[in-house]
Amino acid sequence: MPVYKAPVANTAFILQDVLRISDYADLPGFADVGEDTLVAILEEGAKLFENEWAPTNRDGDVQGCTRHADGRVTTPESFKAAYRAYCEGGWLGISVPEEFGGQNLPSTVNTVMQEFASSANLALAMYPGLTMGAVAALLVHGSQAQKETYLPKMIDGSWSGTMNLTEPHCGTDLGMIKTKAVPNGDGSYAITGTKIFISAGDHDLTENVVHLVLARIEGAPAGTKGISLFVVPKVLVNEDGSLGEKNPVSCGSLEHKMGIHGNATCVMNYDGAKGWLVGEENRGLAAMFVMMNEARLAVGVQGLAISEVAYQNAVAYAKDRLQGRALTGPKNPDGPADPIIVHPDVRRTLMTIRAINEAARALILYTALKSDVRHRSPDPAARQAADDFMGLLTPVVKGVFTDLGFDNAVKAQQMFGGHGYVEEWGMSQFVRDARITMIYEGANGIQAMDLVGRKLAKDGGRAVMSFFQEVGAFCEGAKADPEMAPYVGPLAEGLGRLQQATMWFMNNAMAKPDNAGAGATDYMHLFGLVAMGYMWGRMAKAALAKKDAPGMADTLVVGRFYMERLMPETAAQLARISAGADTTMALSADAF
Amino acid sequence: MPVYKAPVANTAFILQDVLRISDYADLPGFADVGEDTLVAILEEGAKLFENEWAPTNRDGDVQGCTRHADGRVTTPESFKAAYRAYCEGGWLGISVPEEFGGQNLPSTVNTVMQEFASSANLALAMYPGLTMGAVAALLVHGSQAQKETYLPKMIDGSWSGTMNLTEPHCGTDLGMIKTKAVPNGDGSYAITGTKIFISAGDHDLTENVVHLVLARIEGAPAGTKGISLFVVPKVLVNEDGSLGEKNPVSCGSLEHKMGIHGNATCVMNYDGAKGWLVGEENRGLAAMFVMMNEARLAVGVQGLAISEVAYQNAVAYAKDRLQGRALTGPKNPDGPADPIIVHPDVRRTLMTIRAINEAARALILYTALKSDVRHRSPDPAARQAADDFMGLLTPVVKGVFTDLGFDNAVKAQQMFGGHGYVEEWGMSQFVRDARITMIYEGANGIQAMDLVGRKLAKDGGRAVMSFFQEVGAFCEGAKADPEMAPYVGPLAEGLGRLQQATMWFMNNAMAKPDNAGAGATDYMHLFGLVAMGYMWGRMAKAALAKKDAPGMADTLVVGRFYMERLMPETAAQLARISAGADTTMALSADAF
Repeated sequence: MPVYKAPVANTAFILQDVLRISDYADLPGFADVGEDTLVAILEEGAKLFENEWAPTNRDGDVQGCTRHADGRVTTPESFKAAYRAYCEGGWLGISVPEEFGGQNLPSTVNTVMQEFASSANLALAMYPGLTMGAVAALLVHGSQAQKETYLPKMIDGSWSGTMNLTEPHCGTDLGMIKTKAVPNGDGSYAITGTKIFISAGDHDLTENVVHLVLARIEGAPAGTKGISLFVVPKVLVNEDGSLGEKNPVSCGSLEHKMGIHGNATCVMNYDGAKGWLVGEENRGLAAMFVMMNEARLAVGVQGLAISEVAYQNAVAYAKDRLQGRALTGPKNPDGPADPIIVHPDVRRTLMTIRAINEAARALILYTALKSDVRHRSPDPAARQAADDFMGLLTPVVKGVFTDLGFDNAVKAQQMFGGHGYVEEWGMSQFVRDARITMIYEGANGIQAMDLVGRKLAKDGGRAVMSFFQEVGAFCEGAKADPEMAPYVGPLAEGLGRLQQATMWFMNNAMAKPDNAGAGATDYMHLFGLVAMGYMWGRMAKAALAKKDAPGMADTLVVGRFYMERLMPETAAQLARISAGADTTMALSADAF
Repeated sequence: MPVYKAPVANTAFILQDVLRISDYADLPGFADVGEDTLVAILEEGAKLFENEWAPTNRDGDVQGCTRHADGRVTTPESFKAAYRAYCEGGWLGISVPEEFGGQNLPSTVNTVMQEFASSANLALAMYPGLTMGAVAALLVHGSQAQKETYLPKMIDGSWSGTMNLTEPHCGTDLGMIKTKAVPNGDGSYAITGTKIFISAGDHDLTENVVHLVLARIEGAPAGTKGISLFVVPKVLVNEDGSLGEKNPVSCGSLEHKMGIHGNATCVMNYDGAKGWLVGEENRGLAAMFVMMNEARLAVGVQGLAISEVAYQNAVAYAKDRLQGRALTGPKNPDGPADPIIVHPDVRRTLMTIRAINEAARALILYTALKSDVRHRSPDPAARQAADDFMGLLTPVVKGVFTDLGFDNAVKAQQMFGGHGYVEEWGMSQFVRDARITMIYEGANGIQAMDLVGRKLAKDGGRAVMSFFQEVGAFCEGAKADPEMAPYVGPLAEGLGRLQQATMWFMNNAMAKPDNAGAGATDYMHLFGLVAMGYMWGRMAKAALAKKDAPGMADTLVVGRFYMERLMPETAAQLARISAGADTTMALSADAF
């Protein structure tokens, strides 16, 4: 049975010492997360996810979801109580407005909880995760009546939410959507079409499911400019808020997937189902994209979450499994062999995962703070700067941390040798579950193109210039401190390479956009390494400031490891980017 | 349903034009694989694996193997006919001596067939693969009587073979083996103990299973010096060669694995089973290790095999799936969107996999030729040089091509977006199946330690010096040709980095062996990139020599891509290796 212990101490260090959450105390909701309260909240969440959620993770994988002959979809038995405990704790609404039953705490705190939840049981976490996404869309774009009808029930967890974008012939390219919406004449629309890959599309955890659906109103313009967003409840809601008759929308089948078996991935059939327009006609994609940054950030969090729980299990195994002797002589001379954690290659693996996880957590929480600033600050300049940062970093967080989260799960599985390949040990599930995070909410190649093709050039490069300036200023400010030298030197070098790569695109991709496409994935990862390096610089600085506190000496070592072992990759990335697209694109399609 | 087409043309190019198999015509068996015959054999094999094997691959995954209440183990239904067709074609014995029913063709040809077979159905290919391993061990170490009893039936496929090494408490560290052997007084031994992870341990494809089992004879010295090898048939063989009574060895349970569901991975219980010593008492590990190079080479082949079939399916999907428009304007203006192969990030992915696959195939076949020379050459100096090369390159082939094979399967799966995550498309199976190759036959961290800790220093570094000299001489000989410049420059640079890394170990790992351990995996991959680069150098040279032949211009492009996009990684690897072990080993075990 895999172990899980929520990383409360590391999270508190990052929020309090590194990112100085107390500096944000003026923002609404932040006064409620002072030093002790914050830790108390984290510990309360930790208890729930460690004790109530983690033990259900393997059930989800083994039992999976079932679609019955009558169309009902059921989830694994143990999910029900776990979900209920979560709702009763009020976790679903911790960062939404009090008006609809939420607690209005910083969404940063919610991001922490998403990590803990996804480590404990990713498939289960997706149910409330999707509800939160739908809530966010309705908060921004819903009418007051829609908000009043749906939000309180979604926020208390009695109803859940979904996003219906993908169709069989289109995923990335949403301009090809065919699902149609015909006005009923009473303000509602009849929605007809087939959506696929609908996570939590139908299930038995809640009494209703509120679908947000992209569809094309009859006669709308072709392409992305003719797509509207609709709210389509599984069960229609009466005037008095009670549940009425069943809407003609149902789960046609469940996908048989590589992982996240506990989440119901549905083909959803809309057969003239009653729906209501959310926001403006033909502005559906824009409405969806408003919450895209938060949704993508949440998927990046999932990458970290699996990497963290896989790491913890690899550590436990490496301390326990006796095999071979240390190269420097026996460390467990009275036993038949040494624990494998004595072997440098095992250490290298564990240190690599840890160095990534802690930096990823810092960057994610930094980005989440920017999201709070963006939504809560009274200062327009601060809001804009936060929005710039978030737009720029979101594809990096999503693309890089899900790629690395999967890689790290594979690395952790490798520590177990043959046992890692056997399902009972649980490591295979982490790998299989992590795999989806690289795909959904925009496959990682799309994240790379979003970064290179849109975010870099946006507003004349304002966001990226400001990021470079921030990291550059950090290096400048820290370079006089000799204790910071092992961090600042490699970080500055990595930043230099990132700047060179950016310049290379400016000089070579305008005239020839394939040069941007061919280098996009490497650029995204280069950006990720430098951004994580920046976090390590800040973590090292914070650790040096409280050098004698428990764990700080270790933090400084892990940061050095990052600089020595992860940062050098930036040289290879820059070389690949600068190679350009000529060779990549030289073959004709039939030569493949 | 996934597609598979055996890469006959590329294989023939490598064997005939690049490696010049005709130069080996003097070796026994090689006269039978002249130009036309070779291609005829490859095509004959291709037909079998494409038509009879590939269609059974998904059955294996979905049905898996079953252990029945009476202990019998059954394989997926469609495996029977596929296995029979293979045996009837005589493929099992193509490279074993005619004396026992084989055809004595070069083992290089067998290596090609292992690739085709593993691409078509890895789980099925493992059954005859394990038989071949057991046959190899009996050929070298078995008594004449043992050979006569077992080999003809194993080579015609009516009996299969296994390797029984691992026990619950020991995999890598075989010195801890507990299975015991007690002399029966009649020349046989009673074998008692539990072995785990026994591939093809029991099944219904053959009427008998011949187990090779490592065990400790009562009173033998502790550790690796007290381990002997035994042959233990599932059903005892009568004097006249007919099958007698059942031996008390049975499958206690099947493992539930991440992949290769079609192969029965058994817990084997030996309960005083009758066995006979193979080779000398207490020399069992040495007997096993004799065939280790070939077995590890075969696993490297599996890595390539999955990478190849995953690539072919990704290509087919990328040409078919319409999504988005080319950055340079529509390529399919009459369709609703362009096929995704127009996108540079998709191209980059496909080119990366292909550049690795073709070089891996060349290096594998070059190593296989060395294996033939080692076994078949009359010239002791040639045998020794071939043995040096094979010993050095085996951990590289196994470790690097299985790591890359898995990565490539993941990359190919990514091309499919959400469809790649759905089992019906078959891409998930490739990923799950490929995962085991990084673990079995020595986990890849062990391969890296074998390379760095044993192979480098062996015989005063004779093998590695000779490899450096060969690659250096190739660069020297080709550098005057301007058409070779795009290949030779980066190759020479990569070789320089490999030499620097080797020197770094010489200077830093003698006094402090952890420095070798902490850099071992990077070194193995650095070695792999340079060795593949050397193959690309040779492939480019061969392609230039027949420039106008079909496909040669493409080969030259793929080789350039390798140099531009893969070779730069060597810089990062050298940096990581030179960072040494200090930071990696700095934390105490409880700090994890």
